[in-house]
Amino acid sequence: MIVEKNSSEIKRENGFIVFEGVNGCGKSTARKTAARLLAEMNISAVETFEPGSGTLGGILRPLILGEKAAWRSPIAELLLFGADRAGHVTEVIKPALEENHIVLCDRYYYSTVAFQGYGRGVDLSLIKTVNDSAVAGVVPDLVLLFDLDPLIGLKRTLRRAPSESGDDSFEKEDLAFHNRIRSGYLELARTALERFVIIDASRELQVVEDAVIKVLEHYLR
Amino acid sequence: MIVEKNSSEIKRENGFIVFEGVNGCGKSTARKTAARLLAEMNISAVETFEPGSGTLGGILRPLILGEKAAWRSPIAELLLFGADRAGHVTEVIKPALEENHIVLCDRYYYSTVAFQGYGRGVDLSLIKTVNDSAVAGVVPDLVLLFDLDPLIGLKRTLRRAPSESGDDSFEKEDLAFHNRIRSGYLELARTALERFVIIDASRELQVVEDAVIKVLEHYLR
Repeated sequence: MIVEKNSSEIKRENGFIVFEGVNGCGKSTARKTAARLLAEMNISAVETFEPGSGTLGGILRPLILGEKAAWRSPIAELLLFGADRAGHVTEVIKPALEENHIVLCDRYYYSTVAFQGYGRGVDLSLIKTVNDSAVAGVVPDLVLLFDLDPLIGLKRTLRRAPSESGDDSFEKEDLAFHNRIRSGYLELARTALERFVIIDASRELQVVEDAVIKVLEHYLR
Repeated sequence: MIVEKNSSEIKRENGFIVFEGVNGCGKSTARKTAARLLAEMNISAVETFEPGSGTLGGILRPLILGEKAAWRSPIAELLLFGADRAGHVTEVIKPALEENHIVLCDRYYYSTVAFQGYGRGVDLSLIKTVNDSAVAGVVPDLVLLFDLDPLIGLKRTLRRAPSESGDDSFEKEDLAFHNRIRSGYLELARTALERFVIIDASRELQVVEDAVIKVLEHYLR
């Protein structure tokens, strides 16, 4: 998406990198690895995440990730995710890309398809309509999908201290739900192979980190 | 929508009544008139409004009606209206209808079509998709459209004390915008004549009130 015109050292057209996968897949760690790599390469990066970035997201996040409530329905959730994403794109992602930063985003468009669509059974064409309107053409150049058996992800999540794992209601869903999400991600990757790189996240942390670095170096240099 | 099975006195199949129109058209006053009439008839009614009813709406209303912000875009607004409406239907409107109350609602589905669609130029089919998903089939039996030259409505609004008129950002838009909204409402009414009653809101308050009572008596008895 971005071509640095004033630099002969770095040639890149890819500015927007998204990290996706089931809970506990290691994508947040990978985002930090990516940020460290970019810092070493003197490439300016903006780290962000969904849901809940920016001023609108800060208000919506506790609603989206909160416990059951009388107003809650899959559609209300979907529209809140959409509003959060639209605000995030307008306030954070688009300005960062326009200023030639690399954007490293933990969850985006595909999380809603995988969780709300494949996971909860919300109509996929409705999700596409909401997602497309929210992102307004700001689509990632690279999606790193950390593929993992959700049971392993769940065990990893449970090993974390409660304060780290947060009170994310999605981590309390049952395993069948998370298996549908994993399948959904793989289906999404199959339909956009030019954008997705699937990383086997079941391996040792260092092996996964090396794989992330290799992929990023290929894309950035 | 509702048929009272245990009452021989009141025969009604229409339980959900919506009040629509440009700012200053008198729909809020008409809703109060309707509530008073229903109370006199010993018919249980729930008064509500959009945007901002229910627990989700209470949090979203200041966002929706707030001033310019870095996150704001017509799409983010549309999705917030949609989330607000989905929560309102789930938490307030549907339970009230299921308990056989008459629901009197100040603004609904059609406000978004008129304001965001005809007013701001957001794609009408996108609005329809978001609206349809938000209301989940809970559509009004009767829509009272208070038709008025927006200039008269604006003058009425300005005559109110500032504390009454609130800081609704939509009241500060220009006249052409409000004229498009009026036309949009009339277009909506033309495509759903079985549901809409258009009331000439330019007349004296008492004349409009009498017209509202006449329409409601026709629908309720």
